Amino acid sequence: MKPLGPIPAGYEAKDGELAIGGRTASDLVAEAGDTPLFVYSRSHLDQRVVALRAAMPDRLGVNYAVKANPFAPVLDHMTGLVDGFDIASGGELEMVLAAGIDPDRVSFAGPGKRDAELKAAIEAEVTLNCESEGEADRALSIGETLGVAPKIAIRVNPSFELKGSGMKMGGGAKPFGLDAERVPSLARKVIANGADFRGLHIFTGSQALSADALIETKGNVLNLADELAGEIGEPLPKLNMGGGFGIPYFAGDEPIDITAIGRALEDRFARLPASLQDAQLCIELGRYLVGEAGVYLCRIVDRKVSHGTTYLVTDGGLHHQLAASGNFGTVVRRNYPVAIATRFDADPAEEVNVVGCLCTPLDRLADAAMLPRAEVGDLVAVFCAGAYGASASPSAFLGQGPALEMLV
Amino acid sequence: MKPLGPIPAGYEAKDGELAIGGRTASDLVAEAGDTPLFVYSRSHLDQRVVALRAAMPDRLGVNYAVKANPFAPVLDHMTGLVDGFDIASGGELEMVLAAGIDPDRVSFAGPGKRDAELKAAIEAEVTLNCESEGEADRALSIGETLGVAPKIAIRVNPSFELKGSGMKMGGGAKPFGLDAERVPSLARKVIANGADFRGLHIFTGSQALSADALIETKGNVLNLADELAGEIGEPLPKLNMGGGFGIPYFAGDEPIDITAIGRALEDRFARLPASLQDAQLCIELGRYLVGEAGVYLCRIVDRKVSHGTTYLVTDGGLHHQLAASGNFGTVVRRNYPVAIATRFDADPAEEVNVVGCLCTPLDRLADAAMLPRAEVGDLVAVFCAGAYGASASPSAFLGQGPALEMLV
Repeated sequence: MKPLGPIPAGYEAKDGELAIGGRTASDLVAEAGDTPLFVYSRSHLDQRVVALRAAMPDRLGVNYAVKANPFAPVLDHMTGLVDGFDIASGGELEMVLAAGIDPDRVSFAGPGKRDAELKAAIEAEVTLNCESEGEADRALSIGETLGVAPKIAIRVNPSFELKGSGMKMGGGAKPFGLDAERVPSLARKVIANGADFRGLHIFTGSQALSADALIETKGNVLNLADELAGEIGEPLPKLNMGGGFGIPYFAGDEPIDITAIGRALEDRFARLPASLQDAQLCIELGRYLVGEAGVYLCRIVDRKVSHGTTYLVTDGGLHHQLAASGNFGTVVRRNYPVAIATRFDADPAEEVNVVGCLCTPLDRLADAAMLPRAEVGDLVAVFCAGAYGASASPSAFLGQGPALEMLV
Repeated sequence: MKPLGPIPAGYEAKDGELAIGGRTASDLVAEAGDTPLFVYSRSHLDQRVVALRAAMPDRLGVNYAVKANPFAPVLDHMTGLVDGFDIASGGELEMVLAAGIDPDRVSFAGPGKRDAELKAAIEAEVTLNCESEGEADRALSIGETLGVAPKIAIRVNPSFELKGSGMKMGGGAKPFGLDAERVPSLARKVIANGADFRGLHIFTGSQALSADALIETKGNVLNLADELAGEIGEPLPKLNMGGGFGIPYFAGDEPIDITAIGRALEDRFARLPASLQDAQLCIELGRYLVGEAGVYLCRIVDRKVSHGTTYLVTDGGLHHQLAASGNFGTVVRRNYPVAIATRFDADPAEEVNVVGCLCTPLDRLADAAMLPRAEVGDLVAVFCAGAYGASASPSAFLGQGPALEMLV
């Protein structure tokens, strides 16, 4: 038997079924018209941001990393909740513009920005988080051609990392940003060339669950920003302090203690150096804001036994849930939180493998999981599906096509 | 320094550049209009099938597993080369029908077939490789409703595995097919219910490079088929002997010895038991037929150094090349064959990391690779991109969208 991850708070049973936004899974699938279906919960999105803001210093802005979930209704809903939007491609630029988001709230990071993407971003007047000297040169040159002073922040590759993070994006050689020691000279050049210098972006890693590690890293980010501002010779207009707030996916994972992080930031903000006193300070979160608000629903199409092992074969799979299948940056596969949505209040009764419909042994949703007895027609729920699900999975694989999505 | 995988045969330099189908990479990109671009080579597809048929017994049919590459022009080209087509979803059924492929040449395997997919397949009169008793019951019932005798083969979960295969699909508990001992009773039931019994499908694994392992497994498949036919009490009309023929991706990998496999099959076919003497015998190959015929071209948009490591940042990445990035069923990442397409005849001159444009450390195309000195604007080629590339990668990730594809 292998444990399942913890089901996020706020999901309860109604008429024996999993309810999302007060409606049963069956009801939601009936409205959507088919499975597989991603359901995103407005109330989860709202509550997450309310709790986060209550814990964090008032002056800390909260940005949404669009890459985590670019579903248009989710993006639209987030416009009323967060302060800024971080995008990672020209495609995401089109999405935020289509959502009517003020370009002044938008910044664009990413190590491989093409000239066409730089041009579109400069024309739209969003802030570019420049990742190299070469990219800054291209941006300055495009700005000159357009007759527009580009808004340029510089992304820093810090020498420290976010301890315990799922993905490290700082510490040592990285394709992201500029090594810290080269940042001041580029900043001075950008300013000298008449660009609108928008400060620094320091991103150190993602999916950390330790408040201590996050506190230490955010402290290091503030120290580094101050040091760099000193060398640049100007106070920073803005500092994107990065993200890294994780969510519990696996058995034993605990939610991060945002109260502790908020207190530590309050303390730091009370004694900011001059270089940061007037800076716009923000954090950039994707997974933490939307991950637990999403549930992936698929239907059991076969129940079979092979050599004593029971398989529940669903119409979903890794083409929509690559990370949950254990095939995305994972060394040892562990189970996400998974439940039988149509028997949500039933007791676990048997050990089963829940698999997807793809003809590959990689297509696993839950291994050796204790679940209520389920039959063909029952719905399976995979939780923590709000971030890096639909858009981060190979939906065309085996001719399957994308899942449906809805915001309730 | 980490080695690169071996560049497949048949790719040469023209005017200093990689040529595919006699045309330079730059020329192909200019025609396609942009990067990233998958180029598939007709001559590679042709030569692979010619060589395979020359090595294999005349009576052995060659099927194409559409999942490996469903790009419509490739599928269309394969219709003139192979005998049968194996599909894995209702989506792939639509593709083969749209390509005008005779349904008599098509079989449909997959553990999670929905009722609507079974119905479409039965109406189209393609063969269903049934994966469980429950699925066979549903197919029989749908056939009855439609007034059509469904064509049903049974997929067997054999007790042996394909040694050294990249993905094992036999041996022990599996979601695929029926455990061998339950196959005869289901076959008799299918026949008794008036279905058109089409024999057996025995698939044991994929991506094996050892001829000995493939010879042993194909021998076991023939033995098992004979044994099951005896218990069913009828000769088999057809036997799909599965695939498993791999291609070299990584340094040290050697092409499989198809001559040895062909000789061993000749030998077995010369002394087939009565149960198989009139059977249509075929193998089912995807990756082996199309993998080496494809090249993924992307453009260097930045060249940067971090802590002494040089990064070539491209406009491509894992959103088109998930497997090459090392994030699909891989424990230890190794380099695929990668080259600077626009400097294909230049000598290696520096150690670089080739990365994609996505804002994630997972987006790697080549680590610590010795390559010719390359600049912004140069094209990078990732080989072995013909199978499980475009359709098996998360193209919507970070708002990027799909790559272009062309057949030359």
